[in-house]
Order: sequence, then structure tokens, then C-alpha cells
Amino acid sequence: MNDTQYDFGIVGLGVMGRNLLLNMADHDFAVIGLDLDPVKAAALEKENDQGRTVKGTTSAEEFIGALRTPRALMLLVPAGKPVDAVIASLLPLLEPGDIVIDGGNSYFADTDRRVGTLAAAGIHFFGMGISGGEKGARFGPSMMPGGNRQAYERLRPVFEAVAAKVNGEPCVAFLGNGSAGNYVKMVHNGIEYGIMQLIAETYDLLKRGLGLNDDQLQQIFQDWNNTELQSYLVQITGEILQKTDEITGKRLVNVISDQARSKGTGKWTSQNAMDLQVPIPTIDMAVVMRDMSKYKAERVQAAQLLAGNSVANKQQQEQQNRVDQVRNTLYFAILITYAQGLVQLRIASQEYNYELELEEVAKIWRGGCIIRAACLEDFRQAYAKNPALPSLLLDSQIGQDLLTRQDDTRTTIKLAVDKGIPVPALMSALAYFDAYRSEILPTNLIQAQRDYFGAHTYERIDQEGIFHTDWTPAVPPVS
Amino acid sequence: MNDTQYDFGIVGLGVMGRNLLLNMADHDFAVIGLDLDPVKAAALEKENDQGRTVKGTTSAEEFIGALRTPRALMLLVPAGKPVDAVIASLLPLLEPGDIVIDGGNSYFADTDRRVGTLAAAGIHFFGMGISGGEKGARFGPSMMPGGNRQAYERLRPVFEAVAAKVNGEPCVAFLGNGSAGNYVKMVHNGIEYGIMQLIAETYDLLKRGLGLNDDQLQQIFQDWNNTELQSYLVQITGEILQKTDEITGKRLVNVISDQARSKGTGKWTSQNAMDLQVPIPTIDMAVVMRDMSKYKAERVQAAQLLAGNSVANKQQQEQQNRVDQVRNTLYFAILITYAQGLVQLRIASQEYNYELELEEVAKIWRGGCIIRAACLEDFRQAYAKNPALPSLLLDSQIGQDLLTRQDDTRTTIKLAVDKGIPVPALMSALAYFDAYRSEILPTNLIQAQRDYFGAHTYERIDQEGIFHTDWTPAVPPVS
Repeated sequence: MNDTQYDFGIVGLGVMGRNLLLNMADHDFAVIGLDLDPVKAAALEKENDQGRTVKGTTSAEEFIGALRTPRALMLLVPAGKPVDAVIASLLPLLEPGDIVIDGGNSYFADTDRRVGTLAAAGIHFFGMGISGGEKGARFGPSMMPGGNRQAYERLRPVFEAVAAKVNGEPCVAFLGNGSAGNYVKMVHNGIEYGIMQLIAETYDLLKRGLGLNDDQLQQIFQDWNNTELQSYLVQITGEILQKTDEITGKRLVNVISDQARSKGTGKWTSQNAMDLQVPIPTIDMAVVMRDMSKYKAERVQAAQLLAGNSVANKQQQEQQNRVDQVRNTLYFAILITYAQGLVQLRIASQEYNYELELEEVAKIWRGGCIIRAACLEDFRQAYAKNPALPSLLLDSQIGQDLLTRQDDTRTTIKLAVDKGIPVPALMSALAYFDAYRSEILPTNLIQAQRDYFGAHTYERIDQEGIFHTDWTPAVPPVS
Repeated sequence: MNDTQYDFGIVGLGVMGRNLLLNMADHDFAVIGLDLDPVKAAALEKENDQGRTVKGTTSAEEFIGALRTPRALMLLVPAGKPVDAVIASLLPLLEPGDIVIDGGNSYFADTDRRVGTLAAAGIHFFGMGISGGEKGARFGPSMMPGGNRQAYERLRPVFEAVAAKVNGEPCVAFLGNGSAGNYVKMVHNGIEYGIMQLIAETYDLLKRGLGLNDDQLQQIFQDWNNTELQSYLVQITGEILQKTDEITGKRLVNVISDQARSKGTGKWTSQNAMDLQVPIPTIDMAVVMRDMSKYKAERVQAAQLLAGNSVANKQQQEQQNRVDQVRNTLYFAILITYAQGLVQLRIASQEYNYELELEEVAKIWRGGCIIRAACLEDFRQAYAKNPALPSLLLDSQIGQDLLTRQDDTRTTIKLAVDKGIPVPALMSALAYFDAYRSEILPTNLIQAQRDYFGAHTYERIDQEGIFHTDWTPAVPPVS
């Protein structure tokens, strides 16, 4: 084996790296993997049960020496400092013309920096997004490479062989210069966040809004995958809703915690879109709702305090004219906006050790500034009563101010919906109110989806710990 | 005058700096201003028509030498490099114990860096947000200082004298450590963005949704300022709606361009909230809608292509059941989500020179990846037909797919509104659709508000150029 010239190498033999190498070996490429952990290096060779040319090593020298030149090697290590550390350790062993591919979810600006650093040594650096999870890596992922167009020709045969195929066409293509591959993957993940949130909201509406039961919900998503909605995320939603919990015998989705986690690529998409001044509100709302899902203790409190419908006299309301309804809506939404900003100040004060007193803030905003308003005095009083108030929504007076206006707010937003008037901020204020007072959000479904495709694990509502499930149905639903 | 010991100095004698110094002089503080422009330095002394102790100079040495120690001086120069440049030029002249205040809209992380740099020289650095515009600076702003609590005592008498007063209490207080002042001002501005967008949407709904005329709109906002909505922004909205254009004789707001500008502090608020995982959706939507307002050419096109209500057969729709309506809603919103992400890729490709081909992106997303879906083939075809397609919404087939589902989407969202189910992402997709096909958005009102309180100027719809108006009514409305 010592004289073998390997076609492709991967640094980092976690499940993604191992599966990608085995996928390449299936297509008759000789592959080698490097991992400092000898157990992982050995596991790679062990899983090669079909006699392919697959080697695992813990020696960077052996790894680099065994690759045919110009070398093609991919890093599958955590984004951030580990990528820089591996590059620094391999750089002395590499030669001009070699190609290093970062296959992780690196931030695109980091990739641009690394392209520059390695170009000085004559080495091509590629950023490549890979989507499809463990299974995709093993049997066909979608790959999003960006870098130098000419250098890509060295990689093309390997990537086109291992990529997923649609109508015989591989799901990989040279996408563009520099960090284009990471950027496209970032937006891919933003869209993924958006669709997952849309499915979660739809599920919530069918369940809480229309009162459908678990069997009906499962059947609906399974059926929907045979309509124009046909997609991986709709498909796995159907499969997730079918799964029974081995511990309780209940539907597994119902025992999953609704506090969703995230790895930050959706956030990057939203933040960069704001830098470029591109409106992507649906993706923004997906990021927001994952964050909202974490405020569990507050939501439980708010579900009590802000329960039910308006406390106002119905008859009195019917006498109100439309303009008064709009006025109440505007006031409702303005209260919600201040509440959001003041929560941000509370959290930022913890994060940055500001030692802010929110009563002081409300006090000095009562005059002089652009957002001065009569309601600032109410806020000052709320924080005077309770300096640790988590949110203005949990102040009894302000909660009452919101409850008495919620019917008018709903009426006004329905009017805008009917008339086709865009009122995204008004809508977001109502959605914030309804989410904040939701003891349970449908983010348990998002947790299940993430565990399905990325083995990201989940928490349960009935016991401590981190859980992972093989969600694939024993008998896959017809699709 | 040479021996005068000045109490306070300001570097940067634009209108804000000049007005703040004159405000201080009114309260019997001896003040001095520094500006490299001799015209501005002279203008300061000229406006001092009441015999106060006010001096303007172009000499940094004279400026620093004239201040009593420990010195208190404020920078009112543009955020970013100018702040660092002024600090570097003054640093050799300063002594331990002196206090430098940055009164501009600096990013809070820059302030933390400067606090560290100046601490090494024994100098206290404060970041202080100031709100209230030119008039506030002259007659009483709201001021948000953060820095060293002990050092603040040197500043307190000056700041409390010049700040706006509410019930005799000054609208200034030591807020917290480090960059706390800039952070609070940043969130202040985020809330300001949110409220301005809410007012704009409300105005749009009253105007386009309820068909109210300009007189009625003006009266409504004027009246609303006497309700719980009493606030500066509602007040100036009433005044803005009253103003007649000197050029055309029309209401001025109606000739203002609806493409809103922004200076970035709202964006910072949203981006940092995402870093801290604090949901502030209403502020996010305000940022998004300012960005959306810039896509004027596309909106004009979409207003034609996506006009009117559903093209589907009404009767057929009534036979559909609720679940089918929800399905159509989900598909509608998923199409909108992909459209947002692909627009981001188009703009990013221009910004970062990626040379992306969106047909290729759609093609490789058809398989392997998490967001693979049947509709990706439709997108591929749309970009094959027109590689320069600004947005999927402008493709005739996808436009049709949206139009045939918009009635069901509206019905579904109204159901969620009635049931109190939070569906912010679904709502944002509909709002995006309605905004994208709005040839005119109510952002002309936001432009007017910005010009009112910050002299930020505006563009007109009927002629080229940059315009500014003194919006204060000749006879102020009773409030």
C-alpha cells in the first residue's frame, strides 16, 4: 500500500468525513483519511468492507505524502479556529498547485481570508458547503464549491461521481469565485430555517387552530408530499409525526422540548442580508422564532397572565369605528415594540456587564428623545415596581393594556390581509404577543427535523438528557 | 479671555455641536468649541448673541489649554474613522483624569475598544447617545451616557442642566459601564425604526385600506396625539400630513419618494439582537421594510404582474376544505422563502464578485440537500428562461402559482389571527408578497419623519435632487 497514489484525502474522520470517503471509494477513487484520533482512523478502514482502496492514518506526513499531485484534500473539522489550526499544521507539507477544500459550515468572510493566505503559497483554497446530512454524505450529497475555476477541474470527477443525481445530473457545480460556495450554503441554510418554521407554523395551525389529531396530522403531511409540496422537509415531517416514543409509547414529537437550538447559519444569513439591504423577512422570522422558543419560563408565565381573548366589553367594541380599532392596534404594536427593545437591553446588560437599570432608561426616554411618548411613564412605573421584570408584557397593567386591545388588533390585521396592504410590522407584533403567551410552541417539530437530518439530538419534556432517534420509518411511506 | 477656564468643550461644530454648546452657555457654563473649519468656529461665536462665555477655535492646543482640569470634552464627529483620528490627534495634549465623550452614533464595540485604549493613558472615555435632533440639542435633548461611574460626577452638572426635563427630572442619567450609553442609544433607534414603520403601515391601511383622504388622515393623527398614543412621532406625523408643498401646492408627503434611507443603527439593533438570541421581530421588520422600499423598479413591475386578487375560480375554492387551504398557504410561503434567498444570492454575487449562475444553484439544490423539493425544477427553468431574473416573483409561471394561492393564504392567516396561533413566518411571506407588488409603499411618510427630526433630507417623485423642509407648522396643532 505504501506506493499507492491516493486520489483524494479528508482531514477529520467524523461521520461526515468517513461517509464521504466511503462514497468516493464506492466510485473507485483511492482515498485516504487523516485523524489524530487512532480510533477514528481505524474505524474508517473497518467500515470499508468491500475491498476498496481506503486508508486511515494519524500521520499528517503519511497523509500528504500518499496523495497524488496536485493534491486534493478536504477539511471536515469544526468551523472557526480548528480550520485555521489544521491549515497551519499542513501548510509546510503542501506544494504549489495543491488544493485544500474546507467542507464545513465556515463563515464566508473567513474563507475569503484563507483564500488570500494560501494563495501566497500558491495553494488553491476552496470553501464548499455540503448538504444532505450523514446519509447524503454516504450516498449522495448536494455540494456547493467555490474557489478557483481552473483548479476545480482537478476536483470535478470526484465530486460529480459522489454527488446526488437528479435526472442523471449531479448535484454539484462550480458555483463562483472566492467564498461563493460558503455563501450559497449559508443562504441554503437560511431557506432551510424558513421552510422549517413555515412547516412548524402550519402544523401548529392544523393542530391548535383546527383541532386535528396526531393521526390526521401525520396523514396530511404524508399526503402533502404527493402534491406540489413534494420535498425532503415535508417528507421527513410525515415520517417524524409517525414515530412512536419507545419510552412512553406516545408520539415521539409530543415529548420533545419546544426549545429549539441552532448553529448560527440562519442568523448569518439574516445578518448579512441586512448588510446588503436585501429583505428576507421570512428567514428573519425563522431565526426570531428559534430565539423565542428559548424563553420558556417567561412563556409559561405569560400563558397564564395573557390568556384568553379580550377582557373588553364586546358590545362596546362593536360600537367602535374602524379608525378607533386602528388606533388601538397601533398602540398595541407600539407597546410590543418597546417591550422587545427593553428585553434586548436587559439581556445585553447581562452579556456586556452594563449594570443597566431599566427604570432609569424609561425615565430618560420620557422627554427629549425621538421615542418620547406618554407610555414611557407606564414603563418607568413597571420597572419601579419590579426592577427584574423580564418583559413589559409580564407587567399586569401593560398586560391589561394589551389584552383590551387584542380584538381590535386582530380585526385590523384581518382587514389588511383582505385588502392586500402589507403590514409586516403590525403582524409581527401580534405574532410576538401570541408566541410570547404560548406555553408550547411548535418548535418541538423543528427539533425533531434537525435530529432527523443532522443527528443534532433533542431534549425531552419528561426527563433530563440529550436524545437521538433513528427517525427513518421501518416501512417508508409511499412517496 | 485668555485666562478663562472653560467648563466644557466640543470638537466638531456642526449644527449638533453648536447647538449643544449654546444650550450649555444658556445655563451659565463657559464653553469652547473646536473645528478645523474657521467658518464653523466663527459661526459658533456669532450665534452667541446673549453675551455668554462662548469661544470657537481652530487650534487643538488652544482648545485643550483653555479647559479647566480634569477636562471634559465631547466629540461630535461622524462615527468610525473620524472618531479615532480626532482621539489620536488630541491624545498627546490630554492628561490623566481627563474625560473624552463620544456624542455620536458610534457602534458600541468601537466604544469598548476606545475605552481600553484611553484607559492606558489614564483618560476616561464615555460613549453617549444623544436623541432629539437639532432642536433637542439646542433646547433639551435626551442623553444616554455610559462609562466610568465616578468620572460621571464631573459631567453631571452640565448634562443635567442642558437635558430635557419631564416633571422637573432631567432626561439624562449615568446608564452603565463601558459602551452602555451607545448600546442604549442603539436600541432607542431600533425602537424608533419600529414605531415609524408601525405608523407608516397604519397610515397606509387608513389610506389604501379604508380610503380616507388627506384631510381625514391629518385630523386622525392630530387627534391620536391626544389619546394614549401621545408621543413625539405621532405628533410630528400629524404635522407632516398638514404640510403643503411649495412647488406643487399638493400635500408635501405625497410628492416624497417612497425609497427610504437609513443610517444603520436599526440594522445594528437587529443584528446584535440575533447575536444575543433576543427576538425583536417588529424592529427586524422595520429594517426589512426600509430595504424593501429601495427595490422600486421591481415593485413597479410586480405591481403589474401580480395585480388584483386570485385568478382561481371562486366557486372551486369554496369547495376546498380548510386543510387544502393550509396546504396552498404553505406552498405560497415556501415559494416566497426561496425567492428571498435567491434574491440575496443575486445581490451577494454582485457585491462579492462571485459570478453566480442562479440556474446552476437551483439545479444542484434539486437533489441531495436538505431543501430539495419539486419546485426547484421550476426555479431552474425560470432562471434558464431569464438568467437575470430579479426575483422568482417576476417569473410568469411562479407569479401565477402565487396568485392562484393568495386567497387561501389570506384565509389561513385570518384563521391564525382569530385563533391566536403565532404564524409570524407565514405572515411575513404574505406581507412580502403584498409589499413586493406595491408600486408605492408608505415609506414616503418615514422619509418625511426623518427629515422632520433629523434634517436627513428626502427625494421627490416629480423632480431630481435632495430636499429639506422646515416641517414645524406655522400654527402648531393643539396637543
